[in-house]
Amino acid sequence: MKFDIVITNGTVVTCNKDFEIFENGIICIKDGDLVKIEDGSGLQSIPEADKIIDAKGSIVMPGLVNTHTHLPMTLFRGLADDLPLQEWLEEHIFPAEAKHINKESVKIGTRLACAEMIMSGTTACCDGYFLEKDVAEAVFASGIRAVLGQGVIDFPAPGVPDPSENINHAEAYASTLLNTSPLITPSIFCHSPYTCSPETLKKAKAAADSNQLVFQIHVAETKHEYENFQSEHHLTPVQYLDSLGILDKNTLLVHCVWVDDKDIEIMLKQGVNVSHNPESNMKLASGIAPVSKMLSAGIPVGLGTDGCASNNTLDLFRTMDITAKLHKVDMSDPTVMSAIQVLKIATIGGAKVIGLDMVTGSLEAGKKADLIIIKTDQPHMVPMYHPASHLVYTAQGSDVYTSMINGRIVLEDGKLLCMDLEEILEDSRAIGKVIANGK
Amino acid sequence: MKFDIVITNGTVVTCNKDFEIFENGIICIKDGDLVKIEDGSGLQSIPEADKIIDAKGSIVMPGLVNTHTHLPMTLFRGLADDLPLQEWLEEHIFPAEAKHINKESVKIGTRLACAEMIMSGTTACCDGYFLEKDVAEAVFASGIRAVLGQGVIDFPAPGVPDPSENINHAEAYASTLLNTSPLITPSIFCHSPYTCSPETLKKAKAAADSNQLVFQIHVAETKHEYENFQSEHHLTPVQYLDSLGILDKNTLLVHCVWVDDKDIEIMLKQGVNVSHNPESNMKLASGIAPVSKMLSAGIPVGLGTDGCASNNTLDLFRTMDITAKLHKVDMSDPTVMSAIQVLKIATIGGAKVIGLDMVTGSLEAGKKADLIIIKTDQPHMVPMYHPASHLVYTAQGSDVYTSMINGRIVLEDGKLLCMDLEEILEDSRAIGKVIANGK
Repeated sequence: MKFDIVITNGTVVTCNKDFEIFENGIICIKDGDLVKIEDGSGLQSIPEADKIIDAKGSIVMPGLVNTHTHLPMTLFRGLADDLPLQEWLEEHIFPAEAKHINKESVKIGTRLACAEMIMSGTTACCDGYFLEKDVAEAVFASGIRAVLGQGVIDFPAPGVPDPSENINHAEAYASTLLNTSPLITPSIFCHSPYTCSPETLKKAKAAADSNQLVFQIHVAETKHEYENFQSEHHLTPVQYLDSLGILDKNTLLVHCVWVDDKDIEIMLKQGVNVSHNPESNMKLASGIAPVSKMLSAGIPVGLGTDGCASNNTLDLFRTMDITAKLHKVDMSDPTVMSAIQVLKIATIGGAKVIGLDMVTGSLEAGKKADLIIIKTDQPHMVPMYHPASHLVYTAQGSDVYTSMINGRIVLEDGKLLCMDLEEILEDSRAIGKVIANGK
Repeated sequence: MKFDIVITNGTVVTCNKDFEIFENGIICIKDGDLVKIEDGSGLQSIPEADKIIDAKGSIVMPGLVNTHTHLPMTLFRGLADDLPLQEWLEEHIFPAEAKHINKESVKIGTRLACAEMIMSGTTACCDGYFLEKDVAEAVFASGIRAVLGQGVIDFPAPGVPDPSENINHAEAYASTLLNTSPLITPSIFCHSPYTCSPETLKKAKAAADSNQLVFQIHVAETKHEYENFQSEHHLTPVQYLDSLGILDKNTLLVHCVWVDDKDIEIMLKQGVNVSHNPESNMKLASGIAPVSKMLSAGIPVGLGTDGCASNNTLDLFRTMDITAKLHKVDMSDPTVMSAIQVLKIATIGGAKVIGLDMVTGSLEAGKKADLIIIKTDQPHMVPMYHPASHLVYTAQGSDVYTSMINGRIVLEDGKLLCMDLEEILEDSRAIGKVIANGK
């Protein structure tokens, strides 16, 4: 067989079940599929292919999976830092959204986000926002793989001024987007249990279920939320959602900072998935999610950056490093959240929680070719005793020089191939100026 | 006056007392000195200079100051991660040091460290290690500014096999190095209160005092150390050092994780300085230093990375981001450790605690030209509402493309000018191979 692309000579970190690493691996790609991944050191000759990529001195690994984003919010990056959550939200972010978020700006912010993600090693993401159809248009053009959730909230929102239309709007969005591209899967994103009525939550979940879509929801993010549910419902936020019957294997619970042991039991029993966003939780001082406990219990966890208004980057290499360090100090145990465990949740773990683990998240024959190539000829990557250590504790987004999604090269030698970076930066700066003046 | 170098058109973040920022700044340099830093927007013409650097679209700021390193330990980067502190130290790091640390490897590891620091925006550091004369040779060749402390410990150490010679050795080192280069200042680095006797600690401090040198010491790093001192001496580690009379304005206390309110009072009263190493403290699960409290009390604090065996990079941009986020979540307060405060401790604050604040740490006329230029034409730096936010929350070491130390350009457009990067990487990889095989 003549392949489309063959990658040779790299250190291949598969992130498969046995966490196999091939020091001198070979990867063969045809029609967007990973056909063969194996040790290439004994090979007599390189398999025939239209394109050979020599990854000598580099690490090849599955692309990173960002399980929680609000892509257009790149436009608010650094707009309001170091503020109490309510002031940040009510005096800065909500007003900026009301004034500046429209179909055009959403596309520009999303393009900026996709450029940043691709250039820092992310090949798939799970987004939740309003005007998600416009997000989808921009995401589609970027070539990134994505689960894209239309926002549902019982307040007027960009594109859905009448909250009583929120479910209809989300349903129409999902059916329009369904099966339009192999790279894009629609989803429903309920904002939270405190901004949606029980009826809205149940209807939104039913809408997601009718097409087996991922149902995303922010939950148990702050102590305030936790205490409010306890006093109003005598239930934790997680138990409240469970009482509405909306926790199952298609549910993605985002944050889960304030969950107790009983919550973890329920989450495990119902088979829910968790998106962990440590940087956002730290920056907003929300708290530290008991992720190590969840993982030990067997709950699937993926990593997320959250939106750029609260993080402020989409670089998952940074997120991996912080995740490993944060939980060690939080649990007074340097053995928890090892480099390998963190690498797993940033790849196959992330793919699992957004429903894409049959397609992406590891380098295995039969999956799609979503992979990144990382240079190691930099002082911070030398010497190298174990690639997992460097990928988690020293690599940075800018070390990724080539990236492939669904077999298509989207970044080559540091250059974005499928987007006009100059134009994206110019358009984003122009909106930034308007936002800065109009605050 | 004709200047040596003039930098135009950049956004200049001075880190001076008023944290002045010039949107369109001009910086004039002569004989290694900053002669003029001002708003350049009204200028009729660019001052005459041998070299004009157009920093349009970039941020110009003081070079970062790393207040705690063990430079040669870059060779142990990622050798042993995710382990309990004692096992990490006794089964991996100490044996590797005993077997592989010698005059030659120390120079190679130090060169690797200097390359990494310069390429990620650090222009000054404070180091403590053994064989420090060899460290100094390599540091001198790199062009970086440094305070270099010869290690003192009551155990056999590389280069000082007989502990009874440790003070003599350190004194001889310091007097040999004194005034040999405007960039290098000798120092004494006592390992810790639990590895040095009271006599050793007092003698080492006296040796430092005889030349007004910085006296560095690890203290109150772990709960174990804190509890041991309480039970053996009925004093905290900080109080124990105070009882020996070695706390004063030339003392740099490294870590200070386990300090109580009384310790902070003593530290303030004695005028000591603190080096905060959040990433090392997190990765080894040592704890979280009450830095926000120390700063509120008025204690000078700088940032450090610690050695690469426990971090694993020397990239202070990463350290800044983690510092801001860690203390917010630790104190449940998103307003603590603002971007500007973190930027201050990473620059002028760091310079202050290592005794170099009259020379470096801010862009002010009369100081030396230690500065870095950071590109902003990257997705993660757009849009920009405030440069301090991006420098702390989104910039990465690789965004630094030009760096100057003492008026000498050491990094230009991403290329190291004063070191052979290829050779450094090759030499370091070769030692890494030996270490990996000989473990």
